[in-house]
Amino acid sequence: MPELRQDSTTKEWVIIATERAKRPHDFITNKKKEALPSFVASCPFCPGNESETPPEVLAYHDSRKANTSGWRVRVTPNKYPALINRGTIVRKENGKFFRKMDGVGVHEVIIESPYHNGLIPLMKDKEVEEILLAYRERYNALKKDPMVKLIIIFKNHGKSAGTSLDHPHSQLVATPIVPMHIRRKYEVATSYYDDTSRCIYCDMVREELKSDERIVIETDKFVVFHPFASRSPFETWIAPKRHLSSFGNVPTEDIVDLARVLKTTLFKIYNTLGDPDFNYVIHTAPVDDENKSYYLWHIQIIPRLSTLAGFELGSGIYINTTLPEETAEFIRNIKT
Amino acid sequence: MPELRQDSTTKEWVIIATERAKRPHDFITNKKKEALPSFVASCPFCPGNESETPPEVLAYHDSRKANTSGWRVRVTPNKYPALINRGTIVRKENGKFFRKMDGVGVHEVIIESPYHNGLIPLMKDKEVEEILLAYRERYNALKKDPMVKLIIIFKNHGKSAGTSLDHPHSQLVATPIVPMHIRRKYEVATSYYDDTSRCIYCDMVREELKSDERIVIETDKFVVFHPFASRSPFETWIAPKRHLSSFGNVPTEDIVDLARVLKTTLFKIYNTLGDPDFNYVIHTAPVDDENKSYYLWHIQIIPRLSTLAGFELGSGIYINTTLPEETAEFIRNIKT
Repeated sequence: MPELRQDSTTKEWVIIATERAKRPHDFITNKKKEALPSFVASCPFCPGNESETPPEVLAYHDSRKANTSGWRVRVTPNKYPALINRGTIVRKENGKFFRKMDGVGVHEVIIESPYHNGLIPLMKDKEVEEILLAYRERYNALKKDPMVKLIIIFKNHGKSAGTSLDHPHSQLVATPIVPMHIRRKYEVATSYYDDTSRCIYCDMVREELKSDERIVIETDKFVVFHPFASRSPFETWIAPKRHLSSFGNVPTEDIVDLARVLKTTLFKIYNTLGDPDFNYVIHTAPVDDENKSYYLWHIQIIPRLSTLAGFELGSGIYINTTLPEETAEFIRNIKT
Repeated sequence: MPELRQDSTTKEWVIIATERAKRPHDFITNKKKEALPSFVASCPFCPGNESETPPEVLAYHDSRKANTSGWRVRVTPNKYPALINRGTIVRKENGKFFRKMDGVGVHEVIIESPYHNGLIPLMKDKEVEEILLAYRERYNALKKDPMVKLIIIFKNHGKSAGTSLDHPHSQLVATPIVPMHIRRKYEVATSYYDDTSRCIYCDMVREELKSDERIVIETDKFVVFHPFASRSPFETWIAPKRHLSSFGNVPTEDIVDLARVLKTTLFKIYNTLGDPDFNYVIHTAPVDDENKSYYLWHIQIIPRLSTLAGFELGSGIYINTTLPEETAEFIRNIKT
């Protein structure tokens, strides 16, 4: 019998389609993507090619001249930015229906490793830590710009996840608006706070821990789980146990633990599902709401194992062919 | 300079990313998908294989026994339904966070042609008409079920649009809930109606006609256009000029015109962009709101020429690398 399940943080429903169900082991594969070399001379993100990107805004390294090799993590403006750091945030109306504004904002690339094949699941903990520290550092630098309203840090891994360059990298986009999609979630969280004086995400994490059916990893500081209303197979959330709205405020000791947790989580996915394409997104409160208690920063990982089709695009209802209880149990037991 | 544009019907913003811009002719290709044969013995939707689908609920034909060949359009329950016609709509709460209900509803397949390679853009007008009449007939049959709250009719063409069977078909899903995604749009439309006593969609179509920058086709009854805040290249809307909330109430004379308009629109896309994968969705008011004046039924066509990546999944903001003014002008001039 198929089920409809409601995501309590968005009020959206998903269909858990048991009639077309796949078992977790249907996704197992030993076939991985073709291995990449550790260096590609024509890759703009490989060491030695620093002049092919816009000048860096951050690099972690021991000692070197800016924009030369010798870095471990490097952040540069995106050469083909979706938003740029020019223009005004004044909206232009051309009648009621044609509202627009300059595409003002920031779009950066976080090059995660000097190695062309440097995948997070195979890195040392320390290396993952520096990626997360770079995220946090750029977040905190950019949030000072009064035009920045929301900062989204995300990673596209693989073609069907939208990446165009193989060299491991993440991206950061700072927008001059808070999109409706985020405001709607924020409304749900605010209304929950009005009723309970508590954070809806913290309560959800607590309930997930109590039910103990969908937990993948639990540490002192973090919980990794497949949410009750997972939209797609192996959708994974990493949530902190400590309430904190903004990723910018995560203390360094937590970043250390997060690095280990993120790496382990991605390794389980990498090793079992054959290095699948995936996205992850760091969800964090809008900049002006950083100190409010309604929201919990967290990471959502979406392996791209299914396709958004007309039904999803038209209704907003996702069809998931797996039970998160089953996928969580399965992936929990994968050795790392 | 990139632009942010707001969709007035959803209040969502899109980024028109001119820095990574593609011109319409970058999408032109003469390469089409490999041509399919007109009959495939192993295809469950090809004539002669009627016993491989659940028994039909509708077929247009001259004279034949049910569930045999000789039909022109045939509708059957989906063999692997996302929702099924059993169970109750009573929601089950397991704490505040684990709300679910039976996956009760209807999931049907509209087989559009007896020919395995029978594509809408290459059909006779009359054939397209019968597909649309089948949509309407099933819509009106299913809306009588008091458990049905929303009926979504959609088509997935090609693998990246989510189809698993090549034989041309559309799908209908009747859900026992109105998803938030639809309710949010409905809220925008209702609020606009409160302020103006007019339908926001009708007003938008009127403004699109007035601005005359993004129109592809205009007939007595329909307007085809690339909306101001197009989410992806060549996103196309077909809207009626006559205000009507529900697709179920479209008069037959309008269906005749719609068939021609849909076919012409899809032909322009098919012939220019190399038979790209696409989805279309018929947007229509929730069943219980069919007679209210807030909503306008319409069709959205989304060629799958770009990939949803982490930014879109995380923010709800789409990045479109084309200007709808340019794509509309380009496709308007394609001969049919």
